[in-house]
Amino acid sequence: MSSELKSGTKLPLTLVKVGGGIVEDEASLARLLDKFSHIDGLKALVHGGGRSATKIAERLGIEQTMVSGRRITDAETLKVVTMVYAGLVNKNIVCQLQARDVNALGLTGADMNVIQSHRRPVKRVKMDDGTTQDVDYGFVGDVDQVNADLLADLIAKGVVPVLSPIGHDCKGSLLNTNADTIAAETAIALSRNFDVTLMYCFEKKGVLLNADDDDSVIPSITSAEFPQLVTDGVVSGGMLPKLENSFDAIRRGVSQVVITHADNIDVPGAGTTLKE
Amino acid sequence: MSSELKSGTKLPLTLVKVGGGIVEDEASLARLLDKFSHIDGLKALVHGGGRSATKIAERLGIEQTMVSGRRITDAETLKVVTMVYAGLVNKNIVCQLQARDVNALGLTGADMNVIQSHRRPVKRVKMDDGTTQDVDYGFVGDVDQVNADLLADLIAKGVVPVLSPIGHDCKGSLLNTNADTIAAETAIALSRNFDVTLMYCFEKKGVLLNADDDDSVIPSITSAEFPQLVTDGVVSGGMLPKLENSFDAIRRGVSQVVITHADNIDVPGAGTTLKE
Repeated sequence: MSSELKSGTKLPLTLVKVGGGIVEDEASLARLLDKFSHIDGLKALVHGGGRSATKIAERLGIEQTMVSGRRITDAETLKVVTMVYAGLVNKNIVCQLQARDVNALGLTGADMNVIQSHRRPVKRVKMDDGTTQDVDYGFVGDVDQVNADLLADLIAKGVVPVLSPIGHDCKGSLLNTNADTIAAETAIALSRNFDVTLMYCFEKKGVLLNADDDDSVIPSITSAEFPQLVTDGVVSGGMLPKLENSFDAIRRGVSQVVITHADNIDVPGAGTTLKE
Repeated sequence: MSSELKSGTKLPLTLVKVGGGIVEDEASLARLLDKFSHIDGLKALVHGGGRSATKIAERLGIEQTMVSGRRITDAETLKVVTMVYAGLVNKNIVCQLQARDVNALGLTGADMNVIQSHRRPVKRVKMDDGTTQDVDYGFVGDVDQVNADLLADLIAKGVVPVLSPIGHDCKGSLLNTNADTIAAETAIALSRNFDVTLMYCFEKKGVLLNADDDDSVIPSITSAEFPQLVTDGVVSGGMLPKLENSFDAIRRGVSQVVITHADNIDVPGAGTTLKE
């Protein structure tokens, strides 16, 4: 392994990001993990879990406030997301992967200091009603640095990291962190050691040329082609920042980003492939 | 490191077991982690968390049943202990150790398949009222095997494992497991690679010659001396199985077991040392 690294030939690694909707439903999680376990070669998983967190918070009587889709994370809510993301969801995935002979290791960003973050400062945010407001997101993190050396060693030994969307500030606080960001930053950091494909599970089969036609998947988009798709309105709404962040990850070392349906993560060539 | 292992010289490793009472109180946890971070050389931590689990279960309206001090773990209770032990308690310890420059890695037995267990079969148990009864403990595990190779590699690289008391059955179920047992079995497995001191935090300063005199700590007990202390009634009650299990761990490879007050884990020679 290390000799291959030294000679400049990087082993391929697939890092899959899957959202809460899939991992929180028993049947869809089982289907996902079956497919994930069939992905050839080295791999890693990043998961969400927001819906379960909201449910548990409700049952505990802890009121949840969302601003533009982001959870305001006060001290009690931080406890809930820690329990749900790092405990319930993460360890359920890990033990079900072990049952599929995948040597999973569940992690937060605090474990082995993998993801150093800082607490998000108060931000002026445009609200859904059009007004702007200063928002304190509480214990929400923005990623400073991913320390992937120990992680890369473990991956090379066949360990499959399963990352929950929690970072830490190195000063004793865990921080609730966006799972897409954790996935992208970890993929970028691991690109020093591996030929990384970052794969986002999506509810559609990929980026669609025609939003009304589920089979109009664009097979590949280069960074040169991307601006025209934006101009033409093919890429808009929530897909726009997702693709912008994907091309940013590619500029920073990730070999390719694949946007595909969760049912197709083990199908080579399925979905939309973003490349330099 | 590996050359030292091959030459037969094992590096010392201290594995500390601490109960829920200490880790669940913010001030006592901070004191413990200060002291733990001051222990010289390689180390690992195993923690409980039962009181928090009971509290969260109460708040979620999940009724808890204890039989002779053991928690009956139905499916809902398994979710609670997973959230609390592997999430809330474990990750809080990990991030607070990181703040103390200790490169902690939080684990359950499912992570890297470290602790393979089986579900405890229905057992005929003597109840507190003197009757016997068949008891199904539910998702409670008894340890089959500790796979410590990857763990030993990480420890040699300076990583400090923090183990929560949860095993798995390799078939997709997590299992609630006694923390003392996890500590002993992990210490035994790590003895192949390290010169292991297993340290149990205790509410007294050690094993007392006179139960009414907190300063009558017996500094050391050998396996040859132990039976006489039992005959004399010095060791009785809950201390008896604890010491029996400790001497079993020593027979199976652990160098020594130390029973000491949580405030003294970083004080060499404090407490009672059990030796071959």
